[in-house]
Amino acid sequence: MSTATNLKIHNFSAGPCILPQEVLQKAAESVIDYEGTGLSIIEMSHRSKPFEAVMVRAQSLVKELLGAPDHYGVVFLGGGASLGFHMVPLNYMRTGGKAAYANTGEWASRAVKESKLVGETIVVASSEDKNFSYIPKGFAIPSDADYFHFTSNNTIFGTQYKQFPKSPVPVVCDMSSDIFSRPVNVADFALIYGGAQKNMGPAGATVYLMDPERLGRTGRKLSPMLDLKNHADKESMYNTPPVFAVYVSMLTMEWMKRMGGVAEMEKRNAAKAKLLYDAVDRLPMFRGTTAVEDRSVMNPTFVMNDAAMEPAFDALWKEAGISGIRGHRSVGGYRASMYNALPIESVQVLVDVMEEFAKKNG
Amino acid sequence: MSTATNLKIHNFSAGPCILPQEVLQKAAESVIDYEGTGLSIIEMSHRSKPFEAVMVRAQSLVKELLGAPDHYGVVFLGGGASLGFHMVPLNYMRTGGKAAYANTGEWASRAVKESKLVGETIVVASSEDKNFSYIPKGFAIPSDADYFHFTSNNTIFGTQYKQFPKSPVPVVCDMSSDIFSRPVNVADFALIYGGAQKNMGPAGATVYLMDPERLGRTGRKLSPMLDLKNHADKESMYNTPPVFAVYVSMLTMEWMKRMGGVAEMEKRNAAKAKLLYDAVDRLPMFRGTTAVEDRSVMNPTFVMNDAAMEPAFDALWKEAGISGIRGHRSVGGYRASMYNALPIESVQVLVDVMEEFAKKNG
Repeated sequence: MSTATNLKIHNFSAGPCILPQEVLQKAAESVIDYEGTGLSIIEMSHRSKPFEAVMVRAQSLVKELLGAPDHYGVVFLGGGASLGFHMVPLNYMRTGGKAAYANTGEWASRAVKESKLVGETIVVASSEDKNFSYIPKGFAIPSDADYFHFTSNNTIFGTQYKQFPKSPVPVVCDMSSDIFSRPVNVADFALIYGGAQKNMGPAGATVYLMDPERLGRTGRKLSPMLDLKNHADKESMYNTPPVFAVYVSMLTMEWMKRMGGVAEMEKRNAAKAKLLYDAVDRLPMFRGTTAVEDRSVMNPTFVMNDAAMEPAFDALWKEAGISGIRGHRSVGGYRASMYNALPIESVQVLVDVMEEFAKKNG
Repeated sequence: MSTATNLKIHNFSAGPCILPQEVLQKAAESVIDYEGTGLSIIEMSHRSKPFEAVMVRAQSLVKELLGAPDHYGVVFLGGGASLGFHMVPLNYMRTGGKAAYANTGEWASRAVKESKLVGETIVVASSEDKNFSYIPKGFAIPSDADYFHFTSNNTIFGTQYKQFPKSPVPVVCDMSSDIFSRPVNVADFALIYGGAQKNMGPAGATVYLMDPERLGRTGRKLSPMLDLKNHADKESMYNTPPVFAVYVSMLTMEWMKRMGGVAEMEKRNAAKAKLLYDAVDRLPMFRGTTAVEDRSVMNPTFVMNDAAMEPAFDALWKEAGISGIRGHRSVGGYRASMYNALPIESVQVLVDVMEEFAKKNG
């Protein structure tokens, strides 16, 4: 088996994405033998004491890292945030009620579509007019909506809310791609949810962090599998949870805690983002694709002014061991996703390549 | 890291359950470095060429191992078979239509409950009158039902259909706990589904093997996440799939193929079941809990005639390195789950312990 130190790939994948090397190492060991039990983490009962302890620890780390109020609940479900898009209106929109959404990108649009299948859905703000290249501000949220939903970071378009909208109604936020990247005031949210496969862990689990007092108020009879109250009441064990994804998420959260928590993550992420965006702004052959004040710290997007130069640039970064920076087809160009686990050294390699390319071709 | 050969646990867990040691070894390697790519299998994009190949291979192995008709589709979703209980009526019961169910245990009952939330649901057969200790036979299925649903193996109660019911309507089967344990005629089923965490792989993925011609006929507008047709059309990539669970399932299916496929699994499972049930029948202090002709090959259940002897028996099997044979609370006694990956040597250890205990205390 090769070891972590052999790896020479700078992994800018948008998700599933880079995880800390020590997490991968520990996860691999546990796939063979979990903590000396003689059993693999993936072949033990989810009702076994060792796994129950993993689940409890993972739930408690989510709350600890984000400083959530004591009474908030945490569950880990399968299905991805995409299933969350469906569960949000089912669990928060009253029968005959309505919901307010901000539409800031592909995933926000999908959330809107899912809500429309359930009931009245008002898009109170949208940046679709400029290909989602900015974050709408100063919009009004109707005080008779059951909740307001937004997407804190737009993975594809590279924009991010720097300040969260003030809302007269309960707030639901899809934080899939920037959860744990910065401190948030959890008490401001009825629900924070997100797919694990960015800052939290591997694909296969979705975290829901919620105020239980906001649940069970819609008058809607739900399948127990889609009922957040049921999952919260059953402490995320209503059915077999996605064991391995929860375990690796726990390891990743322990790593974050050891590193200094989300405040330290925010500092590191700011430094990485500054390093890259400064290069984008400094080198005339590149330019950012979003409003400067809304630039995502997680997923910087940029293009070349002369697209004909892309193949030569691509050859250069590939040679440097960089992986995953081709932009999404709806934006083009480049997207360098820089999640918590990406070291600043990888960003420096990318910036060096950009500089070198600019010098040769500028 | 300890190696497979150090392990001395005989893992009879009901699920998540034992997986082949060579699968665990390979999975652990891939968590560090997938096939020399320099990236972990859990930190690469699900849209990357390496993972797309894993998905295609996993889909094709399901069909190959079970001899499915060419036009059948395979998808792997999160959420467990429990989400499947909800999706089945949504995808197969026409608006205003009805469904027929056989109720043979805990999971079958949950499937019935979920169907009732969607529409008219007729329980055409049940073994609840005798605590689900047998499989109902010779029951009629109404020819105007949209589908007939049954549970091929009842993990908790230890019963299993030896012959599948004849049905005048499309058949949907939850095969979570005995899929890949024996040959089946896939063309007889509109849908076979099951949680991965028994014979197929780790918790976190659910396989759906289905006739696409039976989909999209209900007149019901569905969330794309609950729409099997959508997932089939998108080749199981509508959203981020549970990457690691799909990968380990692929490895486990490759192992089954190397071992000789499901015909060989059936032979091995029959030998293991005979070894254990013979001991249960031979030793007067033990007795089986189910009708003899309906005994599950996967989850043999048995009790002691004198429950006061259980603590002494428990001490003995624990000492022998046996794990996970305490019965479910609804049956009591013992359940020795013997999935594909459990070697007959482990069953022999259990039988030896039973013999030894009987000799000392008989």
